[in-house]
Amino acid sequence: MSETGPGPLLIIGGHEDKEGDRVILRELAGHIAGGKLVLATVASHAPEGYFDAYERAFQDLGVGDLVELYVHERGDTFDGMADVFADAAGVFFTGGDQLRISSQIAGTPIEQAVRDLHARGGIVAGTSAGAAVMSDTMLVKGTSRVSHRIGDLHMAPGLGLMSHAIIDQHFAERGRIGRLLGAVAQNPRVLGVGVDEDTAILVTGDSFRVIGSGAVTVVDGLGVTHSNIAEARPERTLSIHDVRLHALAAGDCYDFERRRPFGPNED
Amino acid sequence: MSETGPGPLLIIGGHEDKEGDRVILRELAGHIAGGKLVLATVASHAPEGYFDAYERAFQDLGVGDLVELYVHERGDTFDGMADVFADAAGVFFTGGDQLRISSQIAGTPIEQAVRDLHARGGIVAGTSAGAAVMSDTMLVKGTSRVSHRIGDLHMAPGLGLMSHAIIDQHFAERGRIGRLLGAVAQNPRVLGVGVDEDTAILVTGDSFRVIGSGAVTVVDGLGVTHSNIAEARPERTLSIHDVRLHALAAGDCYDFERRRPFGPNED
Repeated sequence: MSETGPGPLLIIGGHEDKEGDRVILRELAGHIAGGKLVLATVASHAPEGYFDAYERAFQDLGVGDLVELYVHERGDTFDGMADVFADAAGVFFTGGDQLRISSQIAGTPIEQAVRDLHARGGIVAGTSAGAAVMSDTMLVKGTSRVSHRIGDLHMAPGLGLMSHAIIDQHFAERGRIGRLLGAVAQNPRVLGVGVDEDTAILVTGDSFRVIGSGAVTVVDGLGVTHSNIAEARPERTLSIHDVRLHALAAGDCYDFERRRPFGPNED
Repeated sequence: MSETGPGPLLIIGGHEDKEGDRVILRELAGHIAGGKLVLATVASHAPEGYFDAYERAFQDLGVGDLVELYVHERGDTFDGMADVFADAAGVFFTGGDQLRISSQIAGTPIEQAVRDLHARGGIVAGTSAGAAVMSDTMLVKGTSRVSHRIGDLHMAPGLGLMSHAIIDQHFAERGRIGRLLGAVAQNPRVLGVGVDEDTAILVTGDSFRVIGSGAVTVVDGLGVTHSNIAEARPERTLSIHDVRLHALAAGDCYDFERRRPFGPNED
């Protein structure tokens, strides 16, 4: 836990390995370094069992103290609930519904505590819904396994810990390239980052490194020469020309400033 | 049916509409113009019912004569079976297994008759397996809905009617961007063309136009700056940088020579 700047973000595409090598959870635990990790199960409508599963998964990975945070009602968050973050080294948002995270904690002392934790060098991790919620604008709903229809995407303001990109998760597994292209078509300055299951990006400063078994797909719309996103009827299929795409595997890195991948050989 | 050069190719991603507007079958019927269409059900291991379904679908679309061609055994193809093509205006390969098409007819008088038909201006159409088989090298097997693993792709020689590209079908529906990236990584000169269901490309000369309700995804690897396809272990996830990607909708066109999409406004 560095005292010299904001901490890292660990953005996981869902279904991270909890029984084998646990590469991703091991990375997270390494940043916690024997300290306290807040396990925020806020995204779930039925959080029972989440904590137990993660307690087992983290058992021998060197997390000193694993503490659950759940919010039944937004109103509860104003009564000292955020104190749990005081001595925490990190927070981990588990899966469920990203709108449940944003609607329950955005603008409350809990969100502020997460920002403070991040600002003082703590790690903020999230898997699935907990990954989606990191960006300024988050994907909420959109169909999978079809090419993108123009009117078919729902976005909402996220926690804004990451302003470079829109995150999508369960990416290859749910065939989500179409909806990520749709999101990028709407604002090509914003990168689309699709994270597969059991795969994560570790964001530090202006770059990230890929961890885990799957791929991370970066969709860069800066060079787009044509799209019909603003012209066509909502049921019309998206047309978009000259997208730059990178498929990145474990060890590959990406520089947000230069908008360039860099390989494991350049680490 | 032009007498001045090779005919068009109609390459369909599978599940083309057979009951509603039938945009794709209507396009095919238009090229047949009251003449004879050979319905080649060769791809199927159990072709019963295919012909009846297409006979109904083409009923009022102006095909003069619809004739089924099925090959039970490769040996049968040498005994005058190809005569059916003599006065045909086109052939339509239906779905099933692309290896069944190539193993049963490649190098036989039937393949030669298809080439002759195409050379004299007839249309060659194919859906699903019948689409995949058109290229020089065709995709045979590869997993869907996961990011590409390097050792996970099976290709075979196709009919070679189309040398610019490798075709994949049921593209968005089966989440096949990963395996198409894998194919392009192996030889970035060859374009990857992923065709959605109820969607087709009509290839004439060096360009194609998109027809139907879904998208056509063009994956262009010419500018790729890095890939690990030849370096890594077979179970390793593919890493590939700087792919150019176009999502094309009905009316969009693509020029193989210039490797550029051109919009409906430039028709």
